[in-house]
Amino acid sequence: MAPQLDGFFKQVDDLSGHFIERLRKAVAIPSISADDERRPDVVRMGQWLADELKALGAEVEQRPLGPQPGKEHLELPPVVIARYGNDKKKRTILVYGHYDVQPAGKEDGWATEPFDLTVDDNGRMYGRGSTDDKGPVLGWLNAIEAHQTAGVDFPVNLLMCFEGMEEYGSEGLDDFIKEEADKYFKDADAVCISDNYWLGTEKPCLTYGLRGCSYYSLEISGPGQDLHSGVFGGTAQEPMTDLVRVLGTLVDTNGKIQIPGIAELVAPLTEEEKSLYGNIAFTMDNLYESLGSQTSIHPDKEKTLMARWRYPSLSIHGIEGAFSQPGAKTVIPAKVIGKFSIRTVPDMQPEDVDRLVFKYVDEQIKKLGSKNTAKCTLQHAGMWWVASPKHWNFTAAGKAVERVWGVKPDLTREGGSIPVTLTFEQATGKNVLLLPMGSSTDAAHSINEKLDRRNYIEGIKLLGAYLHYVAEEEMIN
Amino acid sequence: MAPQLDGFFKQVDDLSGHFIERLRKAVAIPSISADDERRPDVVRMGQWLADELKALGAEVEQRPLGPQPGKEHLELPPVVIARYGNDKKKRTILVYGHYDVQPAGKEDGWATEPFDLTVDDNGRMYGRGSTDDKGPVLGWLNAIEAHQTAGVDFPVNLLMCFEGMEEYGSEGLDDFIKEEADKYFKDADAVCISDNYWLGTEKPCLTYGLRGCSYYSLEISGPGQDLHSGVFGGTAQEPMTDLVRVLGTLVDTNGKIQIPGIAELVAPLTEEEKSLYGNIAFTMDNLYESLGSQTSIHPDKEKTLMARWRYPSLSIHGIEGAFSQPGAKTVIPAKVIGKFSIRTVPDMQPEDVDRLVFKYVDEQIKKLGSKNTAKCTLQHAGMWWVASPKHWNFTAAGKAVERVWGVKPDLTREGGSIPVTLTFEQATGKNVLLLPMGSSTDAAHSINEKLDRRNYIEGIKLLGAYLHYVAEEEMIN
Repeated sequence: MAPQLDGFFKQVDDLSGHFIERLRKAVAIPSISADDERRPDVVRMGQWLADELKALGAEVEQRPLGPQPGKEHLELPPVVIARYGNDKKKRTILVYGHYDVQPAGKEDGWATEPFDLTVDDNGRMYGRGSTDDKGPVLGWLNAIEAHQTAGVDFPVNLLMCFEGMEEYGSEGLDDFIKEEADKYFKDADAVCISDNYWLGTEKPCLTYGLRGCSYYSLEISGPGQDLHSGVFGGTAQEPMTDLVRVLGTLVDTNGKIQIPGIAELVAPLTEEEKSLYGNIAFTMDNLYESLGSQTSIHPDKEKTLMARWRYPSLSIHGIEGAFSQPGAKTVIPAKVIGKFSIRTVPDMQPEDVDRLVFKYVDEQIKKLGSKNTAKCTLQHAGMWWVASPKHWNFTAAGKAVERVWGVKPDLTREGGSIPVTLTFEQATGKNVLLLPMGSSTDAAHSINEKLDRRNYIEGIKLLGAYLHYVAEEEMIN
Repeated sequence: MAPQLDGFFKQVDDLSGHFIERLRKAVAIPSISADDERRPDVVRMGQWLADELKALGAEVEQRPLGPQPGKEHLELPPVVIARYGNDKKKRTILVYGHYDVQPAGKEDGWATEPFDLTVDDNGRMYGRGSTDDKGPVLGWLNAIEAHQTAGVDFPVNLLMCFEGMEEYGSEGLDDFIKEEADKYFKDADAVCISDNYWLGTEKPCLTYGLRGCSYYSLEISGPGQDLHSGVFGGTAQEPMTDLVRVLGTLVDTNGKIQIPGIAELVAPLTEEEKSLYGNIAFTMDNLYESLGSQTSIHPDKEKTLMARWRYPSLSIHGIEGAFSQPGAKTVIPAKVIGKFSIRTVPDMQPEDVDRLVFKYVDEQIKKLGSKNTAKCTLQHAGMWWVASPKHWNFTAAGKAVERVWGVKPDLTREGGSIPVTLTFEQATGKNVLLLPMGSSTDAAHSINEKLDRRNYIEGIKLLGAYLHYVAEEEMIN
C-alpha cells in the first residue's frame, strides 16, 4: 500500500519560504575547507548545523577528528553525527552529507556574491554550497520539520553523518566511519547519500556505480638546478623533453589507453547491460552543452555513457616544475613531474593497474636512452564501486521518485569518484544508494553554483517519501 | 709601443677598498626591475649612479623612456647616459651596462642577505647585482677615478649608456638606441659591453658571437571550460593529450631537432672553425659542474662547445593552463599552451625557422585527427649575432687581457642572447665587443650571486687597459 504522503508534501510547500531561508543562512557561512583561514567558519557551520538538529529534537554529537595531517596546528572540523528517532520497530537509515564547500570569490567571475543566496526569476538559487552539499543536507532537516509541523509520524529512525572536510579529501573520515560502524552506526539497515547530480536537467536518477581513480606522478630529473636554455640548450639532456615524449605515449586523441593489458582488466560488456544504455535520458546535445564544445570522442549517446561509466580513461592533468605562467621564460627545468590518472572500473584491481602502468612507463623511458632519472609513483588510488540496484533501498527510492516526479528514475553510474560511498559499504556491510537532489547544470565546483528552487523543494519531498517507502519495503520484505 | 699602465694599476690596487665600498653601496639598493613595488629603488639606483658619475666630472643625463608598455601607470626607469672627455683627437668608446638586478630574497635560499655585500675569506663577494651588472658598470667609474687619482691621462672619450630594465626585457631601450645613434652616440668608434662571463673560472675570454632565439607558443583548446576527469574522461578529446603528443615530436633526448629543414639552414662547419674549439679552456668537468650533473648530450668538449655556440637547439619550457601545483588535481584543462624555443645560429633566418616550425607542427596536429583547435604562434624572435674578432676593438681587448692576466684570452661565443648587442651594432654600424669581468661560477640569475674580488679589481684594470690599447690601436691603424 502506497504511503499517505499528501499531508507531508503540502507542508513542504507551505514551509518552502522557511526552507529557503534556512539554506540562505547556511550559504552565508563561508565554510571553505581548503582554506586554512576559513577553518573557524567551517567549525561555525558545523555548530550551526548541530544547533538546528538539536532544535528539531535530534540527539547530536560533534566528534573531533584531531589535528589535520601535515598541518598539525590546525584541528580538523568535527563530524556532526545525529540520531532522530530510536524506535526498535522502525527501520534505521544512515544518511551522509557534508557541510563544507569549495572555495569561491567574486573575483573568480561569480555574477553574484557567492555567500549570499540569490534567487533569480527562474527560481535558480545561486550560492556556494547551494547544491554541493548544503541543500541536500538541509533536505533531511527540512523533511523532519515538515513531518513535525504536519503531524505525520516519521517513518524511520534517521542516523546522520555530516562531515566538514569533503572538499579537501575527507581527511580523517574513513577511520571514523570504520570505528563507528558497529557503534554509533550499528543499527543502520541501509545508507543513503545525497551528494551527486542528475545526468541531465529533467529526469531524476538513482546512482549505483562510480569509477575509481588511480593517480600517478612521473618525475624526471637531471641537472642540479634549473638551467638557461641559451647556455645549456643542445648540451644537456632535458627532463622536459623526456617527460613530454613519455606522456605522449600514454593515450591517443580518441582516449584509447596505449598501455598494454589495461583493456583486458575490464569486465566484458554483456548484452543485458548493453541494452540498458539506450533508455537513459541523455543526448549528445546534453554532452555538448556540458562540454561547452562538440569535441567529443564518440558519435552516439550509448558509447558516450559507456565511456563515462564502465570503461577506463586516462587524463594528463599537468606538469609540476616547468614554466607555467603566461609569457615567455627561457628555462630548462631541472625536475619536472607529470601528473596523470586512470579512471578505473570493474573488474580492474588497482595493484594490477599499477603494475601495468609502471612496466609500460619504464619501457618508454628506456627507449629514450636518457641519462636523466625517472621515477613513476602512485599518488593515490580510490576503488570503483558498484551496488545492486535491485536491493529494497533502491526499490524504495525508485517509488519515491515516481511519486514525486511522476517518472521512473534512470539507473545511472557516474564517471567520478565519491570514495566515502565505498567506505560506508565496506564498513557497514549495508547497501548504499546515491540519491541526487540537484541537476547536471548546477556547476558544483565552478563559479555560479546554483540549486533550482524546484529541485530543492521537490527534493525535500523526495527524501521524505524515500523514507516512507523504505519503511513500507520493510513490511513487504 | 705598449701603454704605460703601471701607475694606473697601482692606483687601482690602492683604491681597492674604496671600490669595494662603492659596490657595497650599489648592491644595497634593491633595484629589481621585474618587481613593480621596487620601481622607486630602480629609479633611486639610477640617480645614485648619475650622482657618482657627476662627482667624477662626467656630463650626465637621465633620459625618460615613458610609461611601461602594458603597465601604463608605471614610468620606466630612465636611461643614464654620460660622456667623460670630449677630445676630438681621441677615439670615442661607447660602453653599455645595466643598473637593475634580478629579484632576490633570503627566503629563496640565499646564504647571506642578498642586498648586503658579504665578502668571505676566499674573496667571494656575495650580493645581488655584484656580477650582473653593478660590478662591471662600476668598473668603468672606478677606472676613471683611478686615472684621476694617479694623474694618468684618460686615453679615450668615454660614452656611457646604463639602463634600468635589462632584467625585464630592456623595455624601451631599442628605440632609444636607434634614436640616439646619430645624436648622443654619434662619435662612437666602437662599442664595448661588459655584461657576460668567462667560459670557466681561470681564463678570460672575449666574446664575438651570440645565438638568437625564436620563442613559440602552441595553444590547443577544446572544451568551453576546465572539466572534471571523472565525469568527462573518455568522452571528450583532451587538449593536454594532443599537446604532449605534438611537443613530444619536436626534439629527441639527444637534442636532435626533428623539424625537417632546420639543420639545412645552419652554416656549414669549416675546417678552420673546427680547429678553434680544441684550444678553448673548457673541460667536460666544467660542464658537469655547471650542470650539477653528468646528464650531458655530447662526450667531448669540442662537440659540446659547438652545440652551445654554433648549432641550434630546441627546449620545451613548460605548459600554461594545465595543473602545475604540487599534489593531485583531477582536471582536464580546457586550454593549454605549450612553450618552446629554438636557439638560432648563422645563417638561420627567423622567418625561415618560423615557416618550418609552423609547417611541421601543423602536420603533427593533422596526424592526431583531433577536433580540438590548435594554434602555433611566434612569441618573439631575437637574431643571432656574430662580430669580427679581427677588428682593432678585439685586438686591443686581447692585448689588455694579456697585460692584466698574463694569458691570451679565448675567443668565445655564447649560447644565450644579449639582444642589445645586435641593436648597438645595427644602430651605430660599429664593431661591438663583449668583454666579461666575472667568471662562470658567479650564478648571475640564481641565489648566492657573487663576484670574486680578484675579478672585480683585475677587471677594473682590464677595462682601463683596454681603453689604453684602443687608443694605441688608433695610432697604428
